[in-house]
Amino acid sequence: MLDRPANSGVGAVPSSVAARLACRNGETAGHTAGHAPGYVQGNLCILPKAFAMDFAAFCQRNPKPCPVIGMSAVGDPTLPDLGDIDIRTDIPRYRVFRNGECVDEPTDILRYWTDDLVTFVLGCSFSFEQPLIEEGIPLYHIGRDTVVSMYRTSIDCVPAGPFHGKMVVSMRMMTPADAIRAIQITSRFPSVHGAPVHIGLPEAIGIEDIMKPDYGDPPPVVEKGLLPVFWACGVTPQSVVLNARPPLCITHKPGSMLITDRLNNRLAAL
Amino acid sequence: MLDRPANSGVGAVPSSVAARLACRNGETAGHTAGHAPGYVQGNLCILPKAFAMDFAAFCQRNPKPCPVIGMSAVGDPTLPDLGDIDIRTDIPRYRVFRNGECVDEPTDILRYWTDDLVTFVLGCSFSFEQPLIEEGIPLYHIGRDTVVSMYRTSIDCVPAGPFHGKMVVSMRMMTPADAIRAIQITSRFPSVHGAPVHIGLPEAIGIEDIMKPDYGDPPPVVEKGLLPVFWACGVTPQSVVLNARPPLCITHKPGSMLITDRLNNRLAAL
Repeated sequence: MLDRPANSGVGAVPSSVAARLACRNGETAGHTAGHAPGYVQGNLCILPKAFAMDFAAFCQRNPKPCPVIGMSAVGDPTLPDLGDIDIRTDIPRYRVFRNGECVDEPTDILRYWTDDLVTFVLGCSFSFEQPLIEEGIPLYHIGRDTVVSMYRTSIDCVPAGPFHGKMVVSMRMMTPADAIRAIQITSRFPSVHGAPVHIGLPEAIGIEDIMKPDYGDPPPVVEKGLLPVFWACGVTPQSVVLNARPPLCITHKPGSMLITDRLNNRLAAL
Repeated sequence: MLDRPANSGVGAVPSSVAARLACRNGETAGHTAGHAPGYVQGNLCILPKAFAMDFAAFCQRNPKPCPVIGMSAVGDPTLPDLGDIDIRTDIPRYRVFRNGECVDEPTDILRYWTDDLVTFVLGCSFSFEQPLIEEGIPLYHIGRDTVVSMYRTSIDCVPAGPFHGKMVVSMRMMTPADAIRAIQITSRFPSVHGAPVHIGLPEAIGIEDIMKPDYGDPPPVVEKGLLPVFWACGVTPQSVVLNARPPLCITHKPGSMLITDRLNNRLAAL
């Protein structure tokens, strides 16, 4: 099930294992960008069982913003499909929410864990940006070392139980030729948001001013000849879950992700 | 959310609606093959809430044999994403299982319905056969009016709670050129089993005699120059669920499917 590292012999230890151990041991307590390059990093959402069924349905109905790459058994802190993981310790820094309010940012959640909790790991755009970069498609936010621009849209998610809200999208500016190629490439990665949800015409999805993102950094002044391309974004489920104000919800702190043993390239559907 | 019929004006009623009403009213009590051509037909699995969470996880972990296209709220017999559906009446004939044993084959399940039940609708290969046929790829079982050959393999599904077992596959014989094209086409349809799981070499997945399928009809004598191509099959979840012997499980009777208002062609990822 788990992926062997590129250019390695049988039995070689993936760099993801060492990177995750550093998180487990408290040696890494900040962001994980650039750690274990080539390996999938995931967004975390832990919910009590009473909310987990509806959240599973919400993700099933909204696979572009909420692509589930791992789901635990009730009360089980392991995720064997994604690696030798203990979700209580293996993320550098967590956020603990009570009734939608952040009450703690611990480096482990051993004291919060109960046998009533279900873990969801969601794919993230880090995984599709790698193949875009490898095909020479410039991504301005990476070149400028800023956070990608994200926008709350007018697109309604399909609701499930207490979970409902608008889709959040991330935006990348591209030449039309690069946009067409990026559509082809990201279509191959449905488990990390897949193909774009929109291209051009930001106003058609409720974005009034492309220079004023709701999350992340503003884009550079729009150059002629570039189109905005919009992908469903992992901020969507986090915003939707917290609006539902569950008694307990545990996420990663933004940028401080779960490092898995799956290779980004192996997520490709084709 | 629902798809408009091809070549129709805005507001035209999809042929799927009339076909489903005929099921609801008891006018159709047999198989649904050929009814409402172009529309997605789905496999049914209804389980008590206590089993539904593990089944959702099983499907999440085994998306090729178990592609979920609809999941209801607990106790809710409607499936608005798939059409104006009442799952208690809209399938021509059901099978009701108690502890894994078939106890009834009713034409509705009104008397079995409780507010504890969760409905799963799974995509089926009918939907990917249409685009294969439309691209001129011959499918021998359709030309001969037989049921596709299906085999129990040695491939283990990823378990979830009480659900575990071997993957069942369906097989279609093709020229290598058609097989390559069929891989490309079906890769576009991840919600109806997606790309093949195997090609050639049936013994490598535990199939001892290709002429003796475990389900369906035997294939014609293998012509030179043809390769067997294997897709994950919707018999897998049914077999896995019944082996777990839940107190109650309700499925469609084979061939007697749920007709939805989604167009097959709109399931394509690309």
